[in-house]
Amino acid sequence: MPPHAAPPTPTPKPAVPILKDLTIDNITENVNLINAQAADPRLKYVLERLVSHLHDFARETRLSTDEWMAGIEFLTAVGKKCTDVRQEFILLSDTLGLSLLIDSISHPKPPSSTEGTVLGPYHTHTAPSRPAGSSISHDPSGQPLLCLCSVSTTTGAAISGAKIDVWETDSRGVYDVQYDGYDGTAPSGRAVLRSGADGAFWFRAIVPVPYCIPQDGPVGRMLGVLGRHAWRPSHMHFMFEKEGFDHLITALYLRADPYETSDAVFGVKESLIVDLATVTPEQARKYDVAPDTKLLTYDFVLVTDEETGELRDAEARKAMKALGRERMKIIQGLPVPDVD
Amino acid sequence: MPPHAAPPTPTPKPAVPILKDLTIDNITENVNLINAQAADPRLKYVLERLVSHLHDFARETRLSTDEWMAGIEFLTAVGKKCTDVRQEFILLSDTLGLSLLIDSISHPKPPSSTEGTVLGPYHTHTAPSRPAGSSISHDPSGQPLLCLCSVSTTTGAAISGAKIDVWETDSRGVYDVQYDGYDGTAPSGRAVLRSGADGAFWFRAIVPVPYCIPQDGPVGRMLGVLGRHAWRPSHMHFMFEKEGFDHLITALYLRADPYETSDAVFGVKESLIVDLATVTPEQARKYDVAPDTKLLTYDFVLVTDEETGELRDAEARKAMKALGRERMKIIQGLPVPDVD
Repeated sequence: MPPHAAPPTPTPKPAVPILKDLTIDNITENVNLINAQAADPRLKYVLERLVSHLHDFARETRLSTDEWMAGIEFLTAVGKKCTDVRQEFILLSDTLGLSLLIDSISHPKPPSSTEGTVLGPYHTHTAPSRPAGSSISHDPSGQPLLCLCSVSTTTGAAISGAKIDVWETDSRGVYDVQYDGYDGTAPSGRAVLRSGADGAFWFRAIVPVPYCIPQDGPVGRMLGVLGRHAWRPSHMHFMFEKEGFDHLITALYLRADPYETSDAVFGVKESLIVDLATVTPEQARKYDVAPDTKLLTYDFVLVTDEETGELRDAEARKAMKALGRERMKIIQGLPVPDVD
Repeated sequence: MPPHAAPPTPTPKPAVPILKDLTIDNITENVNLINAQAADPRLKYVLERLVSHLHDFARETRLSTDEWMAGIEFLTAVGKKCTDVRQEFILLSDTLGLSLLIDSISHPKPPSSTEGTVLGPYHTHTAPSRPAGSSISHDPSGQPLLCLCSVSTTTGAAISGAKIDVWETDSRGVYDVQYDGYDGTAPSGRAVLRSGADGAFWFRAIVPVPYCIPQDGPVGRMLGVLGRHAWRPSHMHFMFEKEGFDHLITALYLRADPYETSDAVFGVKESLIVDLATVTPEQARKYDVAPDTKLLTYDFVLVTDEETGELRDAEARKAMKALGRERMKIIQGLPVPDVD
């Protein structure tokens, strides 16, 4: 540069990439560049990872146009199968192990607390609130079950006034919402309960039975093609909400169920397996149930939002380090690239 | 072992993994093990890669339960938006660059042939067959365009009798299928043509205009959140089918379109950009069009199935090697693990 020349005008970096002649090798970086216009740094990071994995999946499998179209048609059929009371995409996520993984990542648990598991597609927001001792099942063919439970903190203090959603199938292994003509006016096998001053909550239900996840939709067909069975072991779902505590989505499983180690949605954890007892004569009198009623007892332990948040942050930092993604900051428990 | 003891009975390896107590760190291998029961080795490989990428995506982003649910709701909305004449999942694939990538992988092209590009969501299987010289557009507001094209092999031999699907929007940038009440009885802007003995095909159309991909659905909302525009540059779609030749899905783009380098679906390639001319007086007489009619000419070059197959195999082998996946065999152009 001659000494008197004006300094070169810095060329402003184009805000958007030149999107032309994209190839197998350069399309990913260009899609990520155009998506990087997003204002939200977290969204930007999630999209960047999503597009990168989606494209790598296609490159590693050399996915054919026919296979891609089969995928498009499969996803469309999954969407079409969804209704207000059936969520086929959650079922897909469950059967691919994604749901359990997300719960494990998003709701880490210290050793002293109750583990979480899959929500499944059958939770509703319209279950009736019921007082302690209510029978949540209206199925006369079910084997009667008395549930005596409690909810406490990791330091053993009772948690009163927790909102507890409970749901299970009937004795045929079918949720109320699965019946044709279900309109939400007569829910069965589900209720919302509250823990008492001592953290206890109790209700009457029926002994859970194993059942098949729905096989009449695309996810059921997928399991068939993969040679997988559709059974879930006998279980009862529980969901806990209490201000200051991390939302707990979990379930209890009956020991020695034939599907204990092959759950179609990967939900079973040893700490959530229970042995049913039979009520004592005293219990039968006290809780006004028949003498041979089966008994389920469990003490649930919730984790504070604070402790969960710290654990989530620590695990996120550890994971980013293990992945070699050092330049990340954690915002509200979620990693985003630190680009300052 | 005492000398007289019978040899230990070999414990058969369990056909299925023990699916219990799955964690962030071991769930992926276990889901892949259970899916490995699939009889089809290609499906097994595709699923293994799909699950691995899906889980890695969740682990790398530490995806939260709320974000997962937002994803479930987004995919459900995409499925719900699909109809017989609108394919929102293809639109999603297009806007994430997956469609162009799949076309590039599945339909590799030698340098001497016409490049492919995105199919888009507006191709139909119900376009009318039309004789040479037909007008495919019924839009009186469109700027008249004469299209004089041909189709040949990479060695320059004419391809006669090729089936050619052509489709474009009207002068407002709207495809026939996008109009309310479209019932397929009066298609406009689309036709199926055949090449003549000399490989030529010609038709009348209108000059393509830029348009926005649909913004009234979840994909349009996604683009909005990402700060991306929804425009596609002016183009006309072409699809070629002829026995013995690889299916060619392509499009021609008008040079100097304002969206030439920012196509919302990443489809533009330099070799597919055309300069429109104006018909000569001779052409106007010969083809019976008005003197100021615009003229599009293009010579399409198809690749034989055999050449495409060899190229696809070679690229798949190269890709597997680059990925360090050495123990793969290529079956019908698609890699599967070589487990013998």
